[in-house]
Amino acid sequence: MRALGLDPGIESFGWAVLEFGNDCAPVLKDCGVIKTPAGKPLGDRLSMIGCELERIIAAYKPGFAAIEEIFFAKNTKTAIVVGHARGAGMLSCAKAGLKIFEFTPLQVKQALTGYGRADKSQVGFMVRGILKLKELPKDDNTVDAIAIGICFVHSFRNLRG
Amino acid sequence: MRALGLDPGIESFGWAVLEFGNDCAPVLKDCGVIKTPAGKPLGDRLSMIGCELERIIAAYKPGFAAIEEIFFAKNTKTAIVVGHARGAGMLSCAKAGLKIFEFTPLQVKQALTGYGRADKSQVGFMVRGILKLKELPKDDNTVDAIAIGICFVHSFRNLRG
Repeated sequence: MRALGLDPGIESFGWAVLEFGNDCAPVLKDCGVIKTPAGKPLGDRLSMIGCELERIIAAYKPGFAAIEEIFFAKNTKTAIVVGHARGAGMLSCAKAGLKIFEFTPLQVKQALTGYGRADKSQVGFMVRGILKLKELPKDDNTVDAIAIGICFVHSFRNLRG
Repeated sequence: MRALGLDPGIESFGWAVLEFGNDCAPVLKDCGVIKTPAGKPLGDRLSMIGCELERIIAAYKPGFAAIEEIFFAKNTKTAIVVGHARGAGMLSCAKAGLKIFEFTPLQVKQALTGYGRADKSQVGFMVRGILKLKELPKDDNTVDAIAIGICFVHSFRNLRG
């Protein structure tokens, strides 16, 4: 089975494809970040995100998407813009028939490190260890997308009942 | 030419198709509201909005979309959710090749009534008068979508330079 981990943002939208079997041990198939230029109209930036996600979904055919829940932001304007990117991502996944699961940042950190207030470096350390990566991707949003994907795979046993 | 007016929301997403010529006098071709059930997962609700907008765009082939800008909300959580719906709407329009224009509520009221602080009934009165409608659609989001569409058509002369 395959899951698509997503860390939504309008400037940088992280994604990761993880493969896993009944043992729920994830293997990283591919990952990256969709960057959209700040000068472009919002509609064009959302379209870039949507088209790129469609391409990734068509290439890897994941059955599940795991996406970070957003509760807060620096201000209302930021919240609205992140909401746009997240909405575009969820729409692309839902239209492609992926089953979508949402996780809070706390759940992701808890799942990876056993500690809900873990910092970035602790999460990165666990991502590297769990997936046996020589090094972490440089982009933070990509690492976060992988972490969300791992969180999903680890909770898959419980999710499927 | 045809323009699609949009008043985004997750429960009720208003839309209106207006036709206009070089005189920039709009005629209402069709309008309605996309309702999504509160109990459904957010991805499914966004998918319902996206699919319905695709259907409307395919049926009426508008070249332009006019959508309300959002600056504020009751709270951050509401802002994020409205952002999702708006992002889904903008993505559907951008992918279909529509040119998207954004208007603030103040610009819409100003364009319709000459007064940026006009209330709902004044806007409704002008919508009815401008389009020569026997009666207004019952749904507020539909009326708002028509108003945004009229605002776009009236400013089209200036927008095209």
